Amino acid sequence: MNLYSYFRSSAAYRVRIALNLKGLTYRTLPVHLLRDGGEQHRPAYRAVNPAGLVPALEDRGHTLTQSLAILEYLEEQYPQTPLLPQGSADRARVRAIAQSIACEIHPLNNLRVLQYLSGTLGLGEEQKNAWYRHWVGEGLGAVERLLADDRRTGAFCHGDRPTLADCCLVPQVFNARRFGCELDAMPTILAIVARCQSLEAFQRAAPEHQPDAD
Amino acid sequence: MNLYSYFRSSAAYRVRIALNLKGLTYRTLPVHLLRDGGEQHRPAYRAVNPAGLVPALEDRGHTLTQSLAILEYLEEQYPQTPLLPQGSADRARVRAIAQSIACEIHPLNNLRVLQYLSGTLGLGEEQKNAWYRHWVGEGLGAVERLLADDRRTGAFCHGDRPTLADCCLVPQVFNARRFGCELDAMPTILAIVARCQSLEAFQRAAPEHQPDAD
Repeated sequence: MNLYSYFRSSAAYRVRIALNLKGLTYRTLPVHLLRDGGEQHRPAYRAVNPAGLVPALEDRGHTLTQSLAILEYLEEQYPQTPLLPQGSADRARVRAIAQSIACEIHPLNNLRVLQYLSGTLGLGEEQKNAWYRHWVGEGLGAVERLLADDRRTGAFCHGDRPTLADCCLVPQVFNARRFGCELDAMPTILAIVARCQSLEAFQRAAPEHQPDAD
Repeated sequence: MNLYSYFRSSAAYRVRIALNLKGLTYRTLPVHLLRDGGEQHRPAYRAVNPAGLVPALEDRGHTLTQSLAILEYLEEQYPQTPLLPQGSADRARVRAIAQSIACEIHPLNNLRVLQYLSGTLGLGEEQKNAWYRHWVGEGLGAVERLLADDRRTGAFCHGDRPTLADCCLVPQVFNARRFGCELDAMPTILAIVARCQSLEAFQRAAPEHQPDAD
């Protein structure tokens, strides 16, 4: 299995966690999103993923894109260490938490959006950081309520084993910290993230442990 | 089944299409996103969905949120008229197309983001519309390539039956047209959307046919 990855990409980070939790071995093929205008725009990478986004996963002759689609694929093909619970309503809850991050927070704060804010709109550093923190605050605030108000929350986002939701939560909190976001009002999230980070699968997936970390 | 919906919400529109394709009957409970500062912020609706977003679906005593999580739930609980193909790699492709819309385009252009651009950042109408069109152009351009360059594309996004991908594509193109986005360079998308719109399930889900349309 080959994973096209960038150490700081939180979408790639999600997939690295899932691969590790399932005990799957893979080769990291780094795509540097900043060097020389972004390696993701080069023809060589566009041939892998025409959208020019990481991650992409090659497995069994298929090239898969979009991190949540990759996570669902891994769950179907490699059911060991399941990352979704059994019942449909519980599965929907885990997916909703994952999507609250992947659809409501991350898209507003990824590299190309920040580049548009600085470049096209000419925003200064302070306005850009305020934008970042605003959407993290709104988004993780909603996730905190989803977690704190539901008895299905356990040691992890759903029950006592990591799920797709935790695969998304940990990278988002990593990013939030990198941008100095205020997280004190989110005790449930912080406790879950601390628990995840005590696990080797999450540790090995962390940006600083990637071969392309700089 | 109760669907909390707003006629113009493209996330709610996705779910309406899926419910219709599966022949499921449901009651629409309108949540007006603009009236009186937004009904989604009222305590009555926050009790349904603490995140204050539409859609939410009530079924069998469960309240489900996040449109893609709802679509996956419907697929698991009501397998008639499947909206995902059989093989895992094909399922991953359909989900990746859906997520290219739900994670890369829609989050940048929804109501609260446009309100932040006008309100907090003080952008004028022209800059706001340029933002909207930029992300639609980037995002649908990537989807066009995914569709045009893959032999698995058929009468619909994947093969000859509608899937989750079509449930996401049609509402996104509806929005793009509403904002006057240029779509001429996207012939594959336009042909698929026209085909979808010839089906009753898509027609009945359209914003203008909702009880709360104004």
